Amino acid sequence: MKFQPISNEIPKMLHGADYNPEQWKKYPEVLEEDIRLMKEANCNVMSIGMFSWSSLEPEEGVFTFEFLDSLLDRLHQNGIYVFLATPSGARPAWMSEKYPEVLRVGANRVRNLHGMRHNHCYTSPVYREKISIINTKLAERYSDHPAVIGWHISNEYGGDCHCPHCQEAFRNWLKEKYETLENLNDAWWTTFWSHTYSSWSQLESPAPHGESMVHGLNLDWRRFVTDQTLDFYRHEIKPLKAANPDLPVNTNFMELFEGLNYAKFADDLDFISWDSYPTWHDTQDESELAAFIAMNHDMFRSLKDGKPFLLMESTPSATNWQPISKLKKPGMHALSSLQAVAHGSDSVQYFQWRKSRGSSEKFHGAVVDHVGHENTRVFQEVKELGEYLGKLDDVVGTTVDAEVAIIFDTENRWAVKDAQGPRNIGVHYERTVREHYQAFWEQGIPVDIIDSEKDLSKYKVVVAPMLYMIRPGVGEAIEKFVQEGGTFVATYWTGIVNESDLTFLTGFPGPLRKTLGIWSEEIDSLYDDEVRTIEMIGNNPLGMSGEFEARELCDLIHLEGAQALAVYKDDFFAGRPALTVNEFGKGKAYYIASRNNHAFHQNFYQELANELSLKKALNTVLPKGVSAQVRTDGDKEFIFIMNFTNQMKQIHLDEELTELLSGNTITGKVVLSSYGVIVVKK
Amino acid sequence: MKFQPISNEIPKMLHGADYNPEQWKKYPEVLEEDIRLMKEANCNVMSIGMFSWSSLEPEEGVFTFEFLDSLLDRLHQNGIYVFLATPSGARPAWMSEKYPEVLRVGANRVRNLHGMRHNHCYTSPVYREKISIINTKLAERYSDHPAVIGWHISNEYGGDCHCPHCQEAFRNWLKEKYETLENLNDAWWTTFWSHTYSSWSQLESPAPHGESMVHGLNLDWRRFVTDQTLDFYRHEIKPLKAANPDLPVNTNFMELFEGLNYAKFADDLDFISWDSYPTWHDTQDESELAAFIAMNHDMFRSLKDGKPFLLMESTPSATNWQPISKLKKPGMHALSSLQAVAHGSDSVQYFQWRKSRGSSEKFHGAVVDHVGHENTRVFQEVKELGEYLGKLDDVVGTTVDAEVAIIFDTENRWAVKDAQGPRNIGVHYERTVREHYQAFWEQGIPVDIIDSEKDLSKYKVVVAPMLYMIRPGVGEAIEKFVQEGGTFVATYWTGIVNESDLTFLTGFPGPLRKTLGIWSEEIDSLYDDEVRTIEMIGNNPLGMSGEFEARELCDLIHLEGAQALAVYKDDFFAGRPALTVNEFGKGKAYYIASRNNHAFHQNFYQELANELSLKKALNTVLPKGVSAQVRTDGDKEFIFIMNFTNQMKQIHLDEELTELLSGNTITGKVVLSSYGVIVVKK
Amino acid sequence: MKFQPISNEIPKMLHGADYNPEQWKKYPEVLEEDIRLMKEANCNVMSIGMFSWSSLEPEEGVFTFEFLDSLLDRLHQNGIYVFLATPSGARPAWMSEKYPEVLRVGANRVRNLHGMRHNHCYTSPVYREKISIINTKLAERYSDHPAVIGWHISNEYGGDCHCPHCQEAFRNWLKEKYETLENLNDAWWTTFWSHTYSSWSQLESPAPHGESMVHGLNLDWRRFVTDQTLDFYRHEIKPLKAANPDLPVNTNFMELFEGLNYAKFADDLDFISWDSYPTWHDTQDESELAAFIAMNHDMFRSLKDGKPFLLMESTPSATNWQPISKLKKPGMHALSSLQAVAHGSDSVQYFQWRKSRGSSEKFHGAVVDHVGHENTRVFQEVKELGEYLGKLDDVVGTTVDAEVAIIFDTENRWAVKDAQGPRNIGVHYERTVREHYQAFWEQGIPVDIIDSEKDLSKYKVVVAPMLYMIRPGVGEAIEKFVQEGGTFVATYWTGIVNESDLTFLTGFPGPLRKTLGIWSEEIDSLYDDEVRTIEMIGNNPLGMSGEFEARELCDLIHLEGAQALAVYKDDFFAGRPALTVNEFGKGKAYYIASRNNHAFHQNFYQELANELSLKKALNTVLPKGVSAQVRTDGDKEFIFIMNFTNQMKQIHLDEELTELLSGNTITGKVVLSSYGVIVVKK
Repeated sequence: MKFQPISNEIPKMLHGADYNPEQWKKYPEVLEEDIRLMKEANCNVMSIGMFSWSSLEPEEGVFTFEFLDSLLDRLHQNGIYVFLATPSGARPAWMSEKYPEVLRVGANRVRNLHGMRHNHCYTSPVYREKISIINTKLAERYSDHPAVIGWHISNEYGGDCHCPHCQEAFRNWLKEKYETLENLNDAWWTTFWSHTYSSWSQLESPAPHGESMVHGLNLDWRRFVTDQTLDFYRHEIKPLKAANPDLPVNTNFMELFEGLNYAKFADDLDFISWDSYPTWHDTQDESELAAFIAMNHDMFRSLKDGKPFLLMESTPSATNWQPISKLKKPGMHALSSLQAVAHGSDSVQYFQWRKSRGSSEKFHGAVVDHVGHENTRVFQEVKELGEYLGKLDDVVGTTVDAEVAIIFDTENRWAVKDAQGPRNIGVHYERTVREHYQAFWEQGIPVDIIDSEKDLSKYKVVVAPMLYMIRPGVGEAIEKFVQEGGTFVATYWTGIVNESDLTFLTGFPGPLRKTLGIWSEEIDSLYDDEVRTIEMIGNNPLGMSGEFEARELCDLIHLEGAQALAVYKDDFFAGRPALTVNEFGKGKAYYIASRNNHAFHQNFYQELANELSLKKALNTVLPKGVSAQVRTDGDKEFIFIMNFTNQMKQIHLDEELTELLSGNTITGKVVLSSYGVIVVKK
Repeated sequence: MKFQPISNEIPKMLHGADYNPEQWKKYPEVLEEDIRLMKEANCNVMSIGMFSWSSLEPEEGVFTFEFLDSLLDRLHQNGIYVFLATPSGARPAWMSEKYPEVLRVGANRVRNLHGMRHNHCYTSPVYREKISIINTKLAERYSDHPAVIGWHISNEYGGDCHCPHCQEAFRNWLKEKYETLENLNDAWWTTFWSHTYSSWSQLESPAPHGESMVHGLNLDWRRFVTDQTLDFYRHEIKPLKAANPDLPVNTNFMELFEGLNYAKFADDLDFISWDSYPTWHDTQDESELAAFIAMNHDMFRSLKDGKPFLLMESTPSATNWQPISKLKKPGMHALSSLQAVAHGSDSVQYFQWRKSRGSSEKFHGAVVDHVGHENTRVFQEVKELGEYLGKLDDVVGTTVDAEVAIIFDTENRWAVKDAQGPRNIGVHYERTVREHYQAFWEQGIPVDIIDSEKDLSKYKVVVAPMLYMIRPGVGEAIEKFVQEGGTFVATYWTGIVNESDLTFLTGFPGPLRKTLGIWSEEIDSLYDDEVRTIEMIGNNPLGMSGEFEARELCDLIHLEGAQALAVYKDDFFAGRPALTVNEFGKGKAYYIASRNNHAFHQNFYQELANELSLKKALNTVLPKGVSAQVRTDGDKEFIFIMNFTNQMKQIHLDEELTELLSGNTITGKVVLSSYGVIVVKK
Repeated sequence: MKFQPISNEIPKMLHGADYNPEQWKKYPEVLEEDIRLMKEANCNVMSIGMFSWSSLEPEEGVFTFEFLDSLLDRLHQNGIYVFLATPSGARPAWMSEKYPEVLRVGANRVRNLHGMRHNHCYTSPVYREKISIINTKLAERYSDHPAVIGWHISNEYGGDCHCPHCQEAFRNWLKEKYETLENLNDAWWTTFWSHTYSSWSQLESPAPHGESMVHGLNLDWRRFVTDQTLDFYRHEIKPLKAANPDLPVNTNFMELFEGLNYAKFADDLDFISWDSYPTWHDTQDESELAAFIAMNHDMFRSLKDGKPFLLMESTPSATNWQPISKLKKPGMHALSSLQAVAHGSDSVQYFQWRKSRGSSEKFHGAVVDHVGHENTRVFQEVKELGEYLGKLDDVVGTTVDAEVAIIFDTENRWAVKDAQGPRNIGVHYERTVREHYQAFWEQGIPVDIIDSEKDLSKYKVVVAPMLYMIRPGVGEAIEKFVQEGGTFVATYWTGIVNESDLTFLTGFPGPLRKTLGIWSEEIDSLYDDEVRTIEMIGNNPLGMSGEFEARELCDLIHLEGAQALAVYKDDFFAGRPALTVNEFGKGKAYYIASRNNHAFHQNFYQELANELSLKKALNTVLPKGVSAQVRTDGDKEFIFIMNFTNQMKQIHLDEELTELLSGNTITGKVVLSSYGVIVVKK
């Protein structure tokens, strides 16, 4: 299967950057030079207008589009396409001054002053009216402009507001959800600490100096914030779609962002895009970081069921907001960019085209530095990558075909981290998901990262690390998946609460007790420096052997049909099952009772991959730090072989493949340079 | 001497838990099962109603006691007694909504929103009126109910409020105390930094954005908060005592809680109770923690001069609010529970009977887990302990007879920690007191933990670690105590200020200079990694020898009649006295000039115990980690031998004693299992 | 050249303390004893009245000067002179109560309550009126009093206020500076994030819940705070100068205080004074601390071009506000005090004369302790130092003649630390300057520490570590300095922005690119545990050899006329220049591209000193930890040889010098005791 390109105007890999020409209005020579440099850098797309509201509407109701008019024309004349932004990411000062209600109110109930960005109320009628007016103007003027290939809505939505408008909207949202206060009181278990609400007006968003420990409230507030932000997004796109329903819309997402449940947004976006800023060359193992970024790419691709996404932002060199602004070493720019493509991106885009001269992002990496010319290492690496991308036309629209899904569920994430106990210094949900993911990544096995409510029927394996919250239907879907032959993997601290954060009373892991064939009686928590050992049982069906380290959490379970594959070796629970499998229907359900080390995950998932003959990008063992990913149109395969180490690495190809950059055929022993990438067609 | 049991209705060890049936009104099968399980667990008492206000008064002035009526009847029919709580620990939402004045105002002068618990103003006339109404109703309805054996007032009082009502009350409190502004200005030394108050209305509670460094103000504010909380407590019990003066009242205290001076409450409570949550199996030396918890038990017992207290709350497994929710290893539940009894508790009670289904304490350990049945490790350990407690009827009412008192003074604690200098990164008052205590605990010597104003005449030894503040009469009492033959031990940083935090001008240690026979000229402070050595003087009368490590603080003193027993070995003060003794009247007064290591305390207090033939629980040397405590009715002794290590330990008994659980006679070599306890009668 | 003494009344080294007799009004015996003790301690000056407002004006408009009248008379009769303070450091409570506008408003826009000190608005008309009245009264009454030799204005000015008065003043300041909003918008680059201001009323001071990331705004706010504080200072001194223009005024400064740009104050002060509180004997290398304090002394001396300053405050023993209140070891008091004199102080003054009896500084070191007599180690050391100072009459008025200047620029400091990137966990500006300074200090080479706008023509060497901001004229001045034969040393991260924090667009290091003969393309940032190596090129003109460690920042530069002296040895930039020299005009300009270790600085500046024959205090190699400083009247030299180690040290004198304390002639091998000082005349 092959998807259409994002825009039919340009059926190529997109290459470009965020561009803020309004900052340089008084430097016409810079604006002129920009066009020349964009072509020199092999760029074909720019994102424009993210923070232009003050430029476009310098006074209330006074609009100045002339600069943008001529800019778009000039870009188009030079073969550069445009994602045009709506300007809601930051308001003009006149608006904050005249209508303070547009400013956000913190959880402490203090209204912000004007300043920063993302400092607006998503509920404010004034703000909604103002954004509607300017979006309508933009839509009417530009939605048929030949340069414009899509809308970039606002910028990195996030945050919440606790103003009276939002409180009112929250109450209405709760009324709609619960219908009666009794239902709400039951769902939030408000008899605890005498929290029972006796009128809707008593309901308030969480506050550090008010309510912060009613988990049902916390959870519903987060859900409301997602819904309200989505509602604002819909409000933003309405005039755009009215003017040209065919022009695609999207908003740029952020790495594992916790503030919004992106799964709820997917249907309303024409395509997904995200902003990726890996801290390459930091002090952690580079493989962990590479796997983590890969997992993000897979998650964003999975949001719209495999449709290619855009890498909307990345830095051509270093950021200036991370603790250390480290330069990318030679090769890393291409590697990092092509990793996105390998996982399903149809673009490589940067923040930012040119470093601004002042304010807080002036030292953020850009294609063009303050010195203003192309004779820099960074510019040349961008230019070379542009050439490379020019050879990947066939990859555009292809997707990733995964047999494995890992559940990374945002509502579960909120709930499991908001819980008091069993380990308040950290259960490390995100890191745990990455650890399971990495075991597949190291084998070159494609993986989807999905919400727990996604359809599971297309997968051979579904892994659900720490699925503390099981919402209605999810337990049933997993049961059916296993019944029909699927392989399911669960861990400790799973099946504890329902969608309201109320515990299951039927014995943990709640709705999965039958499928997994075990009962979890209690869970022990370890200090950071404590280690327990688990030991594989001899001749177990999975063929694993030896001992592994367990840390942080040890679930103490009873077998109820499942078979033990490993047992604890020490502490008072020595001898009790630590890894189990339950034959259930035509499938199998595994339970990992403790937080085990990486060696365990490697062994476990290798055996699983062998048993199930899981499809890999390459039929070869990959050296540590080397990743192989594959995109396909259902017929041809495009395999990306990526070396995330600073040493040369060697792999063995057992078939002849065409290297895309050179057009050469390669086979047998193949050498990857430090941070090297090879893309081959099969 | 033997005390009456808390309630004559039930002259047995109490065993039970906090019980919140109002959470399960919609689960009648749960409520029914609870009664069966309580009996199965050998429980005889439940604490009820701590957070029931919303259930009892769902709307203002509308009372619904029916559920409670039938609950109490049912419990009584099943032989379960009840501590009935007043519900002031958390207000209903309708009250906060209608009368915002009931909500607490923070030191930042911002009023809290509704939420959490303990979020009310102790001064608010409305809150006082409302609690008076409901307490009156409860008293009228239940104070003669046969199930009810006492009142549990509110829950864990604590915190302060800075609202206008409280400011006014504070000003009145100050007027009553000081009579004139001049007196107040003198006591607070307000000429410093031009702080002189020229009208009462200028007085305000401390604030981070106002006054925070006038120590006299800080101290008086803490005293006021204690007095105002006590006043609120008195307000709470008034209608209860009016209805039935014989029904005992108490409120549950907390481990070394710093917010209130519990010594001021003792006379107003019919008995003491406290909530104990040791973090067993954490990373510190288990002996230190065991000694620290023992010290708490001794402090709470000493509050009412040896009268048995109740262990009102403890967890049957893990808490969910500490950093790590670690399970108790097998045996630890009985050991921890019986430790309380060994030090004077006549009960073992839990928070909580049953895990709630929702909200923030749903993962807090309970007798009954979410799964709802008795087939759990935790339930079975509770049940077994209940059986054991059933054999300790003779212990009920007995007390501890201590020859040693250690002064742990709350006002001193406030003052010494609020002081600027000599060691702002910590003088570690609490830890220091524990270190002195532990040296007795390891020898099995009973100790009282007392306020500095307590009568000293009954003791052979009084230890006063870091008694920075010496209030009027205290210096004189200590002088008299030594004069008449007592042994007194003081340390560095003693006798520095009077009750107003004004320094003594007569040379430190102020009122104790004569008794101790030394003058402290100056004190040196060490960084955390600095160590000094002190060296015993040969042939000193105490018989100690060798060298010991000193850290943190080194007092540089001059002998004024005292004799040096040890000297500093290094730094510019090498050769100056580090440990002294002063023969004074018929007694002796020791001065420990530096913060010494545990080996010093062990040696020093062993020699002291030998010299004074201090009474021990057992005439034997206890292995490390084993504690022996003794309760007595003046005739029989009940000795608790407790192993706080995870290894088997062996002790030698040189007499025949009756083991209470088995009824057997034991003597000679006796083995304690890991975390094992033996209780013997003598 | 020799300066006049601060006061012609007393052409001697001043020796004295802050004295707060108003605290002891009710202790007449203490006041009497004070006079005797002052003479005993060889004191000749006291600072009086810093926090006396409540005493002098106990009610609004009611003045009580009688106590001060008689105090001044008594001091004068006993030969003690006085610096008389204006009382603005803390307001009386009646003023805060009646006029809340005098209280400061925080950046969170919440007005402080009464309390603490330094809690007043510098703009408030009421506060200005009130201080004007009391200062006028003081001036009229005391400016001709024979005891009074100068005014001590307020106390340690600092902090900012965000009240409406200050906002208005800030807006006016901005209007005056920028004239038009367009100029302001351009300077602050407000098109970024749509920050454009369209009316002056939109302008606000920075706020955590408002604007915090517009660097131009942050910078101008700090400039405004300096200007407004200076304006307040001028307001304070107006009535004083009106009454007696000849009585000198000053205010006491603080160690490397960041809140104010002291360089702007210098012209308005008749002399400089500062408060020095080194944490002697802390855990760092004592040499680093000694060099750091020396650098402060040199900075304060350089503020008024070499005019002797006063050490206005220091502690005779320990402070009580640092983390550890460590006693000064024997000798350190004299050493620390004479270090100030060695660098240009004409006084040794203490905070405080006598420990107060209450409040937050009662444990701060003092000449007289709570015990009240002179028989203490501290008093005796003060007394001895007083004797020593009595022999240094000839030193009074002499100065330091430096050939080297190091630029430590406050505006640069603000800007480089406010910048986002390249190393948000710290570029360590202050420490870096100290590291360069220390290399001279170890050689006994006198150094001035100057603002970047100071005249450079008198120096042989100018060092400008990390001069990120280059204001108009500064680049030109440096260019001219080198052109005419000077030696200039710059480092990485230099010449990045102009006075508005706008980057130079002409290639870094901006205005210094030509002078330094290099272009900096990009800069790499290292994690704390990363190290790179730089390697000297063989036979380089500077004669340095070997390898050195580089950390934190590595600039990647291109030679544009300069010659490489060292190259990087590792990472992808191995072989690129790491140290360069550019022959320019008659001078040389060095560029140090990475943050190198101390060994590098030692080697580099030794070679430089040799090449340029820089003048040293002593013609000998100083042992580690020994410093030599020289004051001169242009004819005689006074050399201070100071041992900052706790071991004896030996130096070799190659000429005969007169030791000032003994009058003896010394030469050849000379031994310094632990913490010993020798002052010689040449």
